[in-house]
Amino acid sequence: MEPEDRGRVCTLLHAGGTTRVPTLQSVLRSRHAPLRDTATTAPRWQSFTQPLIRQRVANRPPCRNWSSISTAFGSGLCGDWFPFAVHSFEVRQSLQEVARSHTLTTAAPNDVRRASEKALEVSSVTAAAAANTTAPAPHASAAAPESCGLVKPQNVILFGAEDPLQLESGKTFGPVHVNYETYGTLSPAKDNAIFICHALTGDAHVAGRRTAEDRKPGWWDGFVGPGKGIDTNKYFVICANVLGGCQGTTGPNSIDPQTGKQYGPHFPFITIADIVRVHKSLVEYLGITKLLAVVGGSLGGMQVLEWAARYPDSLGGAVVLASGAKLNAQGIAFNAVGRRAIYTDPAFCEGNYYDHAEKPRFGLALARMIAHITYLSEQSIELKFGRRLQDRESLAYDVKQETEFQIESYLHYQGKRFVERFDANSYIWLTRAMDYFNLDASYGSLENALGRSSARFLVVSYDTDWLFPTSQSLEIVRSLISARQHVTSAELSSPHGHDAFLIDSELPMLEGLVVPFLARVQEGMRDAAVATDGAVSQ
Amino acid sequence: MEPEDRGRVCTLLHAGGTTRVPTLQSVLRSRHAPLRDTATTAPRWQSFTQPLIRQRVANRPPCRNWSSISTAFGSGLCGDWFPFAVHSFEVRQSLQEVARSHTLTTAAPNDVRRASEKALEVSSVTAAAAANTTAPAPHASAAAPESCGLVKPQNVILFGAEDPLQLESGKTFGPVHVNYETYGTLSPAKDNAIFICHALTGDAHVAGRRTAEDRKPGWWDGFVGPGKGIDTNKYFVICANVLGGCQGTTGPNSIDPQTGKQYGPHFPFITIADIVRVHKSLVEYLGITKLLAVVGGSLGGMQVLEWAARYPDSLGGAVVLASGAKLNAQGIAFNAVGRRAIYTDPAFCEGNYYDHAEKPRFGLALARMIAHITYLSEQSIELKFGRRLQDRESLAYDVKQETEFQIESYLHYQGKRFVERFDANSYIWLTRAMDYFNLDASYGSLENALGRSSARFLVVSYDTDWLFPTSQSLEIVRSLISARQHVTSAELSSPHGHDAFLIDSELPMLEGLVVPFLARVQEGMRDAAVATDGAVSQ
Repeated sequence: MEPEDRGRVCTLLHAGGTTRVPTLQSVLRSRHAPLRDTATTAPRWQSFTQPLIRQRVANRPPCRNWSSISTAFGSGLCGDWFPFAVHSFEVRQSLQEVARSHTLTTAAPNDVRRASEKALEVSSVTAAAAANTTAPAPHASAAAPESCGLVKPQNVILFGAEDPLQLESGKTFGPVHVNYETYGTLSPAKDNAIFICHALTGDAHVAGRRTAEDRKPGWWDGFVGPGKGIDTNKYFVICANVLGGCQGTTGPNSIDPQTGKQYGPHFPFITIADIVRVHKSLVEYLGITKLLAVVGGSLGGMQVLEWAARYPDSLGGAVVLASGAKLNAQGIAFNAVGRRAIYTDPAFCEGNYYDHAEKPRFGLALARMIAHITYLSEQSIELKFGRRLQDRESLAYDVKQETEFQIESYLHYQGKRFVERFDANSYIWLTRAMDYFNLDASYGSLENALGRSSARFLVVSYDTDWLFPTSQSLEIVRSLISARQHVTSAELSSPHGHDAFLIDSELPMLEGLVVPFLARVQEGMRDAAVATDGAVSQ
Repeated sequence: MEPEDRGRVCTLLHAGGTTRVPTLQSVLRSRHAPLRDTATTAPRWQSFTQPLIRQRVANRPPCRNWSSISTAFGSGLCGDWFPFAVHSFEVRQSLQEVARSHTLTTAAPNDVRRASEKALEVSSVTAAAAANTTAPAPHASAAAPESCGLVKPQNVILFGAEDPLQLESGKTFGPVHVNYETYGTLSPAKDNAIFICHALTGDAHVAGRRTAEDRKPGWWDGFVGPGKGIDTNKYFVICANVLGGCQGTTGPNSIDPQTGKQYGPHFPFITIADIVRVHKSLVEYLGITKLLAVVGGSLGGMQVLEWAARYPDSLGGAVVLASGAKLNAQGIAFNAVGRRAIYTDPAFCEGNYYDHAEKPRFGLALARMIAHITYLSEQSIELKFGRRLQDRESLAYDVKQETEFQIESYLHYQGKRFVERFDANSYIWLTRAMDYFNLDASYGSLENALGRSSARFLVVSYDTDWLFPTSQSLEIVRSLISARQHVTSAELSSPHGHDAFLIDSELPMLEGLVVPFLARVQEGMRDAAVATDGAVSQ
């Protein structure tokens, strides 16, 4: 077994309001024999993968047998997850296998759920049973993945004068130029489309290269492509630059047709819901009624949640990575100081800088430097840079040396690179949309927001992500459970903090969850389609 | 029993290289009967108070009996502390009692330690035995504390032309004006003096008021005063503004006698060691050979560590709060972006702004806003502000509303207030001194740095402090144990993050540790003095 096949897994057992505290042995046994539920409350099982005691055990040698694991880890109740009982163990087996079984153990067939909302009765499927399913073999065992090759950016104009975009603020806006890319082939039944929502400073260019000379491929090339996590041999993948962005979709740096000049500060206030409205319109323009899934991390994850809430029957699966149903106060605080850095740059000129030679590059770079710290973990910064010096062997004892430590030089480099590709107004508009996002407030409650959707949910967090900590994912998971929705959730172990879902080395873990999840979603959608066809033909 | 008397306590047991995993019952029993160590390795016991599973259990109702605690918490090994065995339980008893017993259980008499460095043989004293000691009753049970009243700032000029300050950079510097305050009365034997080292933006004005009209007392008025944590009825307390500061001690905004103008960018590079050199010189000027203790939090804690390393026999006790033996890379990163905010403010003029009407107030305020986020915890920001709006009932949908959320308004207020009292150059110089601090590198190893001191150590961290997380305190504790030093350490539970040691509501917990610690240090010093006098008189 290869090292990357090992994972530490914690199973979260939720028994319909009754707390069950099974012994470690019983949890381990359940991996080798079908789960038998003898409780009278007909519990619904939810699974939760996570590394236990996280980094604390990172340096310990792998346990040689279950007995030693039992001694080492013991058990405990986590108040955060109360009334969940948590048991943990290190699994020396393929993470993909675990993920596949997890996805299946949480699968409550749609018809069962809908037929019997009150008396929820779900059969549990174990790893042993899962081995006999039709879930596809994970990519790890397949041939080496390829790239999407050359991809062509596409454009469409939506929300023309006769059908403007109704913004959440109450205003109307249009037209909206949308820059997007697609990968793979749309099936004749148009049932294999996956929409990817990019994060704050991403764009539509997910995978492949735009020209043969491109030095770098798209931002998620490691995860999207033939044979990859989101397999473009199977799925038709769409990604669009967000409304308010600066990579081709209409944003503050676009020309306002009414004035012939950039919108600048006159660009309307936008929200996540507005961004999703534009995406949905694009999907309709492409002739797709129901997406196989919507996938996104961070700000992209917010879009996924909004999508499921706003268009509950338009997606089969919702994959929410390193995100939350709202930004917490600390997140608002970091966004605020980032914007403040831009506002106080004299070159910002209240957003009217497009005609000027000098742009608010110092402010924008500083905003990025601040934000970048929040994307990393203490652990990853320490490992990558520590207190090592840049270009020196000893301390300079000179305050003018602004990039004496490697971490300083790295942040400066990140700031400088960011300024070359991003617009300061877009940064302000999009971070404010992020601040405003609050699914709970918008729909009365999270249960209301997410309870109407027919989608299955996959909610993934990373243990070192402190911008969107696991507690925020758990809030979503709890609401989904409370609303009796299908949810598989996982806290993955990674040193890379919030950025983990974008880091190549971390993608096999994510793949282990996403590949079987998408397969299960597709299976469910096809079953439903067959049932509908049958009903029609009768 | 009052709510504040409850604490969650975790006992850290270290058995001289051998890992011992006692049962919870045995740990609990040890609180009611003397600890008997039957191991052949003659273990030394160290104790460590901390809240277990931290916030996760914060909302759970208090456990009603030990049995339920045992069920709820179980046991586990923490890799971070390996090879320590950790056991935890919630203690429904006075925290002061616990702290007193802890201080005593870790007390290895100096003479024993010195006489037998190799075969360490330390008797353990339990809570039961501790109840019979001379440790003073904690303040909580005494009369209401008073203030220090009116205090007068004092000044002295040190390091004149004939005896300049030898800076760590290799340069010399002087003269140094030192602004300081004292509280209480120096004993005839001059053996009751405590030096307090202030944090990054603090000053010499620890307690009391400078004028009757002062709206606010000194920055640690809740902890320093008659009958308080550092009791000015017993101790003579000194605090001085640091070298490089801007509150009376020579710093970048002071007049350079050679030019008649402020030093500005020409102020020499300074380090924590240089700051401590000045403090030590002040203490000598006051005629004190050996301090009872040096106490400090954050940057102040770094000064305490440096003091113990540089002047190992000049202090009886070292109290290090929310600090570390070096700043980690994340801390350097936050300091870097703060300084960058100042550097990019056009009014900074490379530090030459003292003659200008416009000071780099936007940059300095932003630096403070960024840093302030790191002083709070996610939990405290969420509790205090959450997503609540400022002066509005509904969202404005307007990016020009820069302080729409309360957290934004709060940060702006903090930035604005800071600019009124602090100098941008001082902020740059002192944060750089903080970045440079690395006790390990300066002395070869932490054991080398701290192993020579005759001081007892109290090392305290806070569970929600992510700027100086407990792991950094544990690094110090481990080194002290390895160097066979006296150390009592505690991780206190507080929602207030790094700032907890400054927050009034959190001071009773700290008092519960510091009061008996100082009493024990004083007792040890007096015993040593009697022994010395005896030797002399023979």
